[in-house]
Amino acid sequence: MNSAVFDVLRKVTTATISTMLLKKGIRRCWMNGPKPLVPGGERLIGPAFTLRFVPAREDLATPESWSKPISTRSAIEAMPGGVIVVADAMGVSGAGIFGDILCARMQKRDVTALVTDGVLRDRAGVLASGLPVWCAGMAAPASVNGLTFVGWNEPIGCGGVAIFPDDVIVADDDGAVVIPKDLVEFVAHEGAEHELYESWVFTEVEKGAQLPGLYPPNEESKARYQQWRHSLD
Amino acid sequence: MNSAVFDVLRKVTTATISTMLLKKGIRRCWMNGPKPLVPGGERLIGPAFTLRFVPAREDLATPESWSKPISTRSAIEAMPGGVIVVADAMGVSGAGIFGDILCARMQKRDVTALVTDGVLRDRAGVLASGLPVWCAGMAAPASVNGLTFVGWNEPIGCGGVAIFPDDVIVADDDGAVVIPKDLVEFVAHEGAEHELYESWVFTEVEKGAQLPGLYPPNEESKARYQQWRHSLD
Amino acid sequence: MNSAVFDVLRKVTTATISTMLLKKGIRRCWMNGPKPLVPGGERLIGPAFTLRFVPAREDLATPESWSKPISTRSAIEAMPGGVIVVADAMGVSGAGIFGDILCARMQKRDVTALVTDGVLRDRAGVLASGLPVWCAGMAAPASVNGLTFVGWNEPIGCGGVAIFPDDVIVADDDGAVVIPKDLVEFVAHEGAEHELYESWVFTEVEKGAQLPGLYPPNEESKARYQQWRHSLD
Amino acid sequence: MNSAVFDVLRKVTTATISTMLLKKGIRRCWMNGPKPLVPGGERLIGPAFTLRFVPAREDLATPESWSKPISTRSAIEAMPGGVIVVADAMGVSGAGIFGDILCARMQKRDVTALVTDGVLRDRAGVLASGLPVWCAGMAAPASVNGLTFVGWNEPIGCGGVAIFPDDVIVADDDGAVVIPKDLVEFVAHEGAEHELYESWVFTEVEKGAQLPGLYPPNEESKARYQQWRHSLD
Amino acid sequence: MNSAVFDVLRKVTTATISTMLLKKGIRRCWMNGPKPLVPGGERLIGPAFTLRFVPAREDLATPESWSKPISTRSAIEAMPGGVIVVADAMGVSGAGIFGDILCARMQKRDVTALVTDGVLRDRAGVLASGLPVWCAGMAAPASVNGLTFVGWNEPIGCGGVAIFPDDVIVADDDGAVVIPKDLVEFVAHEGAEHELYESWVFTEVEKGAQLPGLYPPNEESKARYQQWRHSLD
Amino acid sequence: MNSAVFDVLRKVTTATISTMLLKKGIRRCWMNGPKPLVPGGERLIGPAFTLRFVPAREDLATPESWSKPISTRSAIEAMPGGVIVVADAMGVSGAGIFGDILCARMQKRDVTALVTDGVLRDRAGVLASGLPVWCAGMAAPASVNGLTFVGWNEPIGCGGVAIFPDDVIVADDDGAVVIPKDLVEFVAHEGAEHELYESWVFTEVEKGAQLPGLYPPNEESKARYQQWRHSLD
Repeated sequence: MNSAVFDVLRKVTTATISTMLLKKGIRRCWMNGPKPLVPGGERLIGPAFTLRFVPAREDLATPESWSKPISTRSAIEAMPGGVIVVADAMGVSGAGIFGDILCARMQKRDVTALVTDGVLRDRAGVLASGLPVWCAGMAAPASVNGLTFVGWNEPIGCGGVAIFPDDVIVADDDGAVVIPKDLVEFVAHEGAEHELYESWVFTEVEKGAQLPGLYPPNEESKARYQQWRHSLD
Repeated sequence: MNSAVFDVLRKVTTATISTMLLKKGIRRCWMNGPKPLVPGGERLIGPAFTLRFVPAREDLATPESWSKPISTRSAIEAMPGGVIVVADAMGVSGAGIFGDILCARMQKRDVTALVTDGVLRDRAGVLASGLPVWCAGMAAPASVNGLTFVGWNEPIGCGGVAIFPDDVIVADDDGAVVIPKDLVEFVAHEGAEHELYESWVFTEVEKGAQLPGLYPPNEESKARYQQWRHSLD
Repeated sequence: MNSAVFDVLRKVTTATISTMLLKKGIRRCWMNGPKPLVPGGERLIGPAFTLRFVPAREDLATPESWSKPISTRSAIEAMPGGVIVVADAMGVSGAGIFGDILCARMQKRDVTALVTDGVLRDRAGVLASGLPVWCAGMAAPASVNGLTFVGWNEPIGCGGVAIFPDDVIVADDDGAVVIPKDLVEFVAHEGAEHELYESWVFTEVEKGAQLPGLYPPNEESKARYQQWRHSLD
Repeated sequence: MNSAVFDVLRKVTTATISTMLLKKGIRRCWMNGPKPLVPGGERLIGPAFTLRFVPAREDLATPESWSKPISTRSAIEAMPGGVIVVADAMGVSGAGIFGDILCARMQKRDVTALVTDGVLRDRAGVLASGLPVWCAGMAAPASVNGLTFVGWNEPIGCGGVAIFPDDVIVADDDGAVVIPKDLVEFVAHEGAEHELYESWVFTEVEKGAQLPGLYPPNEESKARYQQWRHSLD
Repeated sequence: MNSAVFDVLRKVTTATISTMLLKKGIRRCWMNGPKPLVPGGERLIGPAFTLRFVPAREDLATPESWSKPISTRSAIEAMPGGVIVVADAMGVSGAGIFGDILCARMQKRDVTALVTDGVLRDRAGVLASGLPVWCAGMAAPASVNGLTFVGWNEPIGCGGVAIFPDDVIVADDDGAVVIPKDLVEFVAHEGAEHELYESWVFTEVEKGAQLPGLYPPNEESKARYQQWRHSLD
Repeated sequence: MNSAVFDVLRKVTTATISTMLLKKGIRRCWMNGPKPLVPGGERLIGPAFTLRFVPAREDLATPESWSKPISTRSAIEAMPGGVIVVADAMGVSGAGIFGDILCARMQKRDVTALVTDGVLRDRAGVLASGLPVWCAGMAAPASVNGLTFVGWNEPIGCGGVAIFPDDVIVADDDGAVVIPKDLVEFVAHEGAEHELYESWVFTEVEKGAQLPGLYPPNEESKARYQQWRHSLD
């Protein structure tokens, strides 16, 4: 994935991305659950690095399990810089998948962001770590209280959406969306055009224009937009 | 609805309004779902203007549908100034019913506020539009991803409450309530009295008074309150 | 409960407390529902004082019921200073168990905090009362709209957790946990040690250390930690 | 409660009972959750005997707890003949509150029926015990897996409805309703009349009559009904 | 809609219909909620006749409302023979939209079936009426306890699916699906072919054939199927 | 796993198995969701063979995907005889994971049973296939309508429980439980003893014995039980 495409996408809202994907028939791209822990931050983008949990079982989900070869600790050490980590916590709301220390380590490893349909713990410490987080809230108990970690970089579900390793994730104040890797170029190009068009519509609305015929545009509006569009070049 | 009554109601909390409606046997007046997008704003009031959605169907809920005569765009152009728009989105959490452009147009049309049991999209743009919004959150996808718009100014449900056109809506930090139009005068008058009484109780509590006998008042407290009440005239 | 133990616990996060309780086989200690009304406040601790509601029934849950001997008003007057009040509202989201006046009175009685799996009303007034609150949101209607108060200092459930009078409650930004009273000393002692250990790990991570072998520690890390630990004495 | 009133009520459907209670302003009388384990049985009636559970906590909810003075076993020995036991299991679906042995003992004690918003275990054994049961399903684990028993004959909630000891419970194929004890005579008398009226309407419908003007009746239908009604005496 | 197409569709399972609609990109056609009240009956088909409810409000949803011009009674008298009535009850589980009398009248009017995401009341009487029903369960209280009826033959949602008057409904043991009216011919033709193909596959499986290459078919299987297919003509 | 142990377990109810596992501290063993499609059948046992789904994505979950190497078809051909297949469908209620043909093929392959927290389709055909099924209901649409199949014999969650390949599954009228493979011998031995003890208790209850002191037993009851127990040898 070349960084130029990422630079384009960084200026395209997740709202617009989901509309571009709808043009390709894809309705299930927005994860229902993850919200920005700190709203108002910048839009982030990166290839997906997935984590998978199954429910806890008392003989498996113990503090001792944290030392096993398949552990969240090992997964973190396998994360390349620049990825957005997406964790399938099955929407479990009573077990924080990560706390301050693991977030701090991910930050050290240049992880771009953590996205999960589950919750985190140690709110103060997570904020202090500086790692951007999209999650479904906070809970005091550790992941072992409700979850068993079983692997990384497998296909997962997160917030009702399928995520495959190497899909691209974009997250902003409206939440997080996945772009199937084959559609990244299309979405970047079409999305950038769409943002330009919407910025023109917004200006028209500010001037007092009515919406029917403007958004979506009729032939006359299309012509006026094209005129404005060419004036930019 | 004369504006004097609205001016009185603007000083009555939604909490007090719901208690006044309970005196008339009405328990279902508070919409469970809509929350202020920006807490701490002023209390707003207006006649209800309703919007109705049904679920999406792939042959109906397309971007093309936005140009149809029955569309959210046409509905917006039909909104009189001063109304509070109430949108029945059936609590769908994965499709933003409106984004920045539609909110900006509603603001231009002097809509007082938008209330919905659904979600919006383009959080940054919606905030920039200045339109006061009570909703159940944010999602990136457009309404067509989960919803089909079918009409305006019909009876609807919103957050478990029935809303009819011309009912009166009041919204503040505790959410949004509906006042059936025949009860507006009653609620305004009784509500204002109740607020006065509660302000006196609050002062008494600040002085260290116990609650039993005071709130609700026994005969002695009623007499003391009446004395204070008359001293205001 | 001596205050020295409370002073120790005040420095132990609810995240750490839940991990210490897991060592004793207790997984159900964190209440799923109550969140801080104002995040970022200090951690609070106190013995539990419980309130119990059942569902509303129209012949019982009336404003008149507020004057009965078994009422929230009487319960408040029975609250000793320093307690954390835990109210079982069965997660009902449409009826505010308390508003500004009751919170103001609790504050006057030196109640440390109010924790509930239900909601409050009069958000502005509750904030003004200064009483620290952990709850599941806000609703305009009064408790009688959905709930009947039936007693205090009985065993209750709150957010999926059993609370008995005299259990100890700790609440911070990650929510609220209960410590069974027989385990308070254990949790305070082990928790304080664990916080110290985590602070050392955090420093190591800041220096760039990897997690496997460090968190949880292998023998070498344990030795290094003990060395650092002794250097503090 | 004299048995004559019970004999009348045994012929009144829970559907009709809920309509009679609505005339008195009571909407919350039908328990949402309990369903007949064996549909098609006869309608049952009895005074309520309540059981109360709170969530499990690992230090409390153990097999050992079954020997404690406050236990389901002791509660069963305190049940008078003829009661309908109503158990508040908070809708927990993963822990069977009773199995074959406890149901068999309740049957021996002439308990009329068991109603709960929770689930049972040992389906085959429960059926074999012959105790009529209204519940929300079946689960293999015992109550201690999710619940702690805390007392009997206290006010409880069950399926969103408040139940007080000595209220009257009626259960049939539509589920279970509570009649507040002060309204039992009213409901029996009005309900029997209503059943008679509905039987006449049903006959009219069978003959091909239209519903408007018949159900509810206009003046002409009222007169025709009265004529038929008097012909019965 | 000619009856020949209906006769073809009557032999196509709802499972196959949903697969045919998926070929046209339609995923939202099966109503999540309605189940057959009596499993094992025959498959039914008819044009949709819709009913719409909003939530109850105590000033609106009263027994008196049953006499109003816009009432379920009037709606029933407007139903043509052969329709399948689809009622949007918003999934409300505590208020039975219809009981024995209304079902008996619908049966008299030659209504083919009633489908709803809500519940019915008077289970015994509804069964006795003979009207085929797909619903989400049973409750004793009347519709006014939770619902207000607002109109018929409007677009509605039912079980997460949009239903428009004149769409075609098919219901069997797997539940109920809607076929948009423009797709009825396509679905009937393709569906009948698909049923034939599946019957051949089933026979092959009975003979011991493996699934890969057979279902879906590779070239060889397609050829063998065509041979068998032609042998039928 | 020798078949003798299986023969013992076949006589131990899932209720008793969950109680035996609780003795080992395991509370999460019963899957919340799967119910017998046909109640009243015999208890079944077998090693787990797992199937894993993630949510549908329109570019992945298509009828074409059924021909891919990683498909439910390939998974079925990999199933050894005697296994109990456990499918993680994430509780999705609107997409039937299997229909008549796939069930018929599994039956041909001597699969003992299918257990899932999702739903099936083609109810009539599935019943006709003879494959014993525990599921959460029925839906007409195919799995691709809501699910993407991603692999077999991986760790999964099902109904809130972790299942690993080679764990042992037991299913009866109370649902399905997992026995971690290391605990199978323990559960079989202790469970058989427990069933014997419960059969004695049941006889005592039939004779009119009270529960306290009997169940669980005090010293005197233990002695009487041992006497009876030895009389069997």
